[in-house]
Amino acid sequence: MNAEKESAFAGKRVLVTGGLGFIGGRLSQRLVSLGANVVVADALIPEHGGHLRNLRRAARRVQIERADVRDRATMAELVRGQDFLFNLAGQTSHMDSMTDPETDLEINARSQLSILEACRRHNPQVRVVFASTRQIYGRPDYLPVDEKHPLRPVDVNGINKLAGENYHLLYDDVHGIRSTVLRLTNTIGPGMRIKDARQTFVGVWIRRVLEGEPFEVWGGAQLRDFTFVDDAVEAFLRAATRREAEGAVYNLGGPPPMTLLALAELLVELNGGGSFVVKRFPAARRKIDIGDFFADAGLIERELGWRARTSVRTALAKTLAYYRKELGHYV
Amino acid sequence: MNAEKESAFAGKRVLVTGGLGFIGGRLSQRLVSLGANVVVADALIPEHGGHLRNLRRAARRVQIERADVRDRATMAELVRGQDFLFNLAGQTSHMDSMTDPETDLEINARSQLSILEACRRHNPQVRVVFASTRQIYGRPDYLPVDEKHPLRPVDVNGINKLAGENYHLLYDDVHGIRSTVLRLTNTIGPGMRIKDARQTFVGVWIRRVLEGEPFEVWGGAQLRDFTFVDDAVEAFLRAATRREAEGAVYNLGGPPPMTLLALAELLVELNGGGSFVVKRFPAARRKIDIGDFFADAGLIERELGWRARTSVRTALAKTLAYYRKELGHYV
Repeated sequence: MNAEKESAFAGKRVLVTGGLGFIGGRLSQRLVSLGANVVVADALIPEHGGHLRNLRRAARRVQIERADVRDRATMAELVRGQDFLFNLAGQTSHMDSMTDPETDLEINARSQLSILEACRRHNPQVRVVFASTRQIYGRPDYLPVDEKHPLRPVDVNGINKLAGENYHLLYDDVHGIRSTVLRLTNTIGPGMRIKDARQTFVGVWIRRVLEGEPFEVWGGAQLRDFTFVDDAVEAFLRAATRREAEGAVYNLGGPPPMTLLALAELLVELNGGGSFVVKRFPAARRKIDIGDFFADAGLIERELGWRARTSVRTALAKTLAYYRKELGHYV
Repeated sequence: MNAEKESAFAGKRVLVTGGLGFIGGRLSQRLVSLGANVVVADALIPEHGGHLRNLRRAARRVQIERADVRDRATMAELVRGQDFLFNLAGQTSHMDSMTDPETDLEINARSQLSILEACRRHNPQVRVVFASTRQIYGRPDYLPVDEKHPLRPVDVNGINKLAGENYHLLYDDVHGIRSTVLRLTNTIGPGMRIKDARQTFVGVWIRRVLEGEPFEVWGGAQLRDFTFVDDAVEAFLRAATRREAEGAVYNLGGPPPMTLLALAELLVELNGGGSFVVKRFPAARRKIDIGDFFADAGLIERELGWRARTSVRTALAKTLAYYRKELGHYV
């Protein structure tokens, strides 16, 4: 597989939107190590996930463009001539999508359509992978949730991400812009946003426990699955290089799901100390919460041979180790 | 039912977006006859369905605002103080949505979100009915298509209408803006756009047959169902006044479906002459065509007692009679 991937990306031109983000940064590092010529586009919006340190040592070997996906002209220039487009830029906060729904629409829906239009006009050969989210499913009818589950998003973010996903599938089907959609579940690892819960609640837990402060567990009995960032990155690479993935939608999933309480206890154990308080869900969040969720990732395992290989214990341990050194840069 | 509806709308303030359109115009006439104070908002975009004659004699009894749903400030003013909002303004052409996808997004998705935000801020008591479309289902897995059918839109229009629909359901659920979604199938009747096929192919058939020109039938074996406009209007009125319709999604459906060939033959028969040519589907259209489609309207029948009462024969005959007099105004 490594040799195959090396040849797939060696010397190739690759654009990563959201490339200074948590997953985008890690993906860009991998692409550099596989010999790709990587252009990273990131708006570095303070409330989003972009951070220069997310590229680590690869920063000197990629072309960094401070570019917002909402800027049509800039994006149209950036997509020209690329062999691959990893389309990860997004607004991820469910709460922010409810208080400022039009900004979420601009980033997660309208900009995606503009980018695809730019591909259609200027670079129809490009191979695209789009980062979608399990949020589009809404509250599950059954578990684990497979790709056939009804799509009933419970917040503005889910609605707009669904539109973004649909544009990619349509442009693949009608205009031949070869695209794959990955529906991510909770992704954790070094580089995740820890300043607050805008990307994932686990981020702010990490921050608090490292700062010696109790963190808050809302509810606690909810089951969730957690993918380690390097496993997610591996899925993006496979999706981009396998013909059977063109026009396909895949769930990513984690190792077996666990309750938030179990996750909280594991975090305290791995940190060698710390505490948390269990709280009732705040009213505004309860309305857009989805309850238990974990994904069936059987389809991507069968078709692309991908599965989450990293345990939650290992993922959390690596994340803690990273932020023990890096905390000051991220808060 | 009539007495009930009279009391529901008498003296009430009603805003109809797209109120000079085919269905919006007919609905506005009915609302006037039920004693409502009707404000009609319509941009009269030449490629869309608005036409001053669609209000007929009611034109003198409604307040007509030339307003585009894309204009946030105007729409925010117009929704203030309304008891009902019938939200029918839209871009309906599937082909136009493919050649100019961002305009379709602006009208069918972004503007809907802005209107709902305006309701949330300035008029959370308003009762909303949104005109959605069977286009969001895409190519049917089974027939007739009920509301549980997967949503896999095959053009930009379907993707954006789905987002528009989802916003309405979300604002009902989370913000208490009581909304009903009606998924319309092919609607026909006096007032439909006949200049071209931007609203429905039946429109341009009517025009051609009245002008003594052969019309084109693409394919011909496809099954479709056709709702008469007055039946559709009745569904809007019921949806707006019944508590069980709040937060609900209903298909409208027609009388039993027929093939396009059978419809073409019926049209020629009712016109007392005319001809058509059967053509292979043009390539650009084939990619976004949905094949056979007819809706299961059992849910709205069970919950609201609505069903399509007008046969296709009667609907076509009334439409022909209207355009025999009005043709010159509409082409």
